[in-house]
Amino acid sequence: MSAKREEVSLTLLISGFGTVGRAFTRLLVRKRDYLVREGINVKVVCITDSKGGAVKEDGFTAEELMELTKVKRSGLSETKWGIRGFTTTDGLDKLKPDVLIEVTPSNYETGEPGLQHVMRALENSCHVILANKAPLALKFKYIMSLAKRKGSLVKYKATVMAGTPLLDLIIHGLKGAKVLYIKGILNGTTNFILSCLERGLGWDEALHVAREKGIMEADPRLDLEGWDPAAKLVILVNTIYDSDYSVKDVKRKSLTKEVVRLIDDEFTVRYLAIFEKGQLKVEPVRIHRSDFLAQVKNTYNCVELRTEYDNVIRILGKGAGGTETAFSILSDLMSIAKYLRG
Amino acid sequence: MSAKREEVSLTLLISGFGTVGRAFTRLLVRKRDYLVREGINVKVVCITDSKGGAVKEDGFTAEELMELTKVKRSGLSETKWGIRGFTTTDGLDKLKPDVLIEVTPSNYETGEPGLQHVMRALENSCHVILANKAPLALKFKYIMSLAKRKGSLVKYKATVMAGTPLLDLIIHGLKGAKVLYIKGILNGTTNFILSCLERGLGWDEALHVAREKGIMEADPRLDLEGWDPAAKLVILVNTIYDSDYSVKDVKRKSLTKEVVRLIDDEFTVRYLAIFEKGQLKVEPVRIHRSDFLAQVKNTYNCVELRTEYDNVIRILGKGAGGTETAFSILSDLMSIAKYLRG
Repeated sequence: MSAKREEVSLTLLISGFGTVGRAFTRLLVRKRDYLVREGINVKVVCITDSKGGAVKEDGFTAEELMELTKVKRSGLSETKWGIRGFTTTDGLDKLKPDVLIEVTPSNYETGEPGLQHVMRALENSCHVILANKAPLALKFKYIMSLAKRKGSLVKYKATVMAGTPLLDLIIHGLKGAKVLYIKGILNGTTNFILSCLERGLGWDEALHVAREKGIMEADPRLDLEGWDPAAKLVILVNTIYDSDYSVKDVKRKSLTKEVVRLIDDEFTVRYLAIFEKGQLKVEPVRIHRSDFLAQVKNTYNCVELRTEYDNVIRILGKGAGGTETAFSILSDLMSIAKYLRG
Repeated sequence: MSAKREEVSLTLLISGFGTVGRAFTRLLVRKRDYLVREGINVKVVCITDSKGGAVKEDGFTAEELMELTKVKRSGLSETKWGIRGFTTTDGLDKLKPDVLIEVTPSNYETGEPGLQHVMRALENSCHVILANKAPLALKFKYIMSLAKRKGSLVKYKATVMAGTPLLDLIIHGLKGAKVLYIKGILNGTTNFILSCLERGLGWDEALHVAREKGIMEADPRLDLEGWDPAAKLVILVNTIYDSDYSVKDVKRKSLTKEVVRLIDDEFTVRYLAIFEKGQLKVEPVRIHRSDFLAQVKNTYNCVELRTEYDNVIRILGKGAGGTETAFSILSDLMSIAKYLRG
């Protein structure tokens, strides 16, 4: 649909080099030609992990990026571009990248280290793309206000139902319509466990299968105590209502082995994140097997919104996986490029 | 999220004054304060129907608009602002409105009268919002190219799953990801009929109920011969792939009373619009009752997309109704205002 257009060049700092950071790096290499055709020139100038960083001011080549994705965890500083103790903040200050990709783990107590990365980036008028939910789940409005003042963009599509462009639908699609309630299955791991239980597996067995499939978080509380769906709910609600809820405002009930008793041939349980009349909660809810949300199985997520026009909109798709998250980050990067091109 | 911003003033010509034109006019009146708060000043300067138009160059007041919505069908020219024989084209040439709202009925043989309205508007560098599907279902690329050359915007959210921002999700959300196939229930009337059949009603009875509920098109072929879902599929596919399919490229199989034989306790039928490997088709498909699409009932629509990342995204919501369509048009109007504000 587009004729000749201006090129945009963007330098990137990738903060965090676990599953998501590596999946995004591989995707960037794979999509390089596509991006060039779209007039977007991306150069990764720095990647950091918990022990240090790899820096190349004129940008890593595709081959070098692929080499880095094969380095062991926290091993960046041992490569030939490595600097031990080099932090994301060092990178932001010294290299002045155009975009920070913040993909360190979510910590809902302090928001760190992601929160300070985001603040420093914005102070430097650097754009930010987040897959790490914690900064937005704790300091949404503060971050958005600072971004606005500094003229930076903050994109965070990967934080909620990565791979399924739910946030786009909400941001672009629901202009002018009030959303009356939100109800969703926002955590793939607990939904997978519940799917196992409804197939007749016991609690311990279900957890074991989830662990074997590699879908449990290193810290199981994020899933089973509802921190992850609570953070996603907060991000969704703040985006829709321009509000400033924190993940700490969400009433969370954990998913425990007690739910097994609530599942029978007629009923099942879904671990729902609900926003209604100013209240946010995450809790196991017993629902009929013919209920729509009972059809959402395994690691699939679903969000249900009721608009003032009495339309119930439901969006289903996979929750976060490395590839889906990487794709969402790429999509955010393309939005930033589009914005800069004007 | 937004500080003080510039105001935008837009003059509107509403072409077509049936269910949708009237619902949109009422919504405009109801949302007037909201639009003013958003910095958008809308003035309707002309409304046309099949016999003529009502014209007020300095814009109708809210009261006058409400009065007009109560006039009998094709009765605009008999009001005090009425001009018999005054056409949309006259209005476009003489009043030079900023935006044409094209909501005349879809005609898939010729595309008229909508097609000539759209072309004339674009030649005048007027922006266009469509609920009428025919022009885009027949001349997608031609319209888009002309719009581009003239610097006009063409918005058409109401044409596919009005009220459910599917097109936003696709346009904004799937950047960078290939869509491998599309499969959807895109016509609410035939899905309602099928839902009746699966509850045990006979064919004639089901059609009767659909007619009583007022959801059958005046021309039943649009629903039962698949023109309506075919047009929506073409618009979706052209939007995603920047292609130039016409509704005439879609292989359509009608929904006939024969489907009754295919429905039993275990299986049901859905009237599906499918795009796969360059082929477009609309046909009744027998599916298991546990199949996801079997859960989509009554007038609800659903689109299923598979991305190259192997994510299956499903979006469910109501199809077109007067209010939902009006809301989509309003949402498009706000996008145009946002674009003009820059």
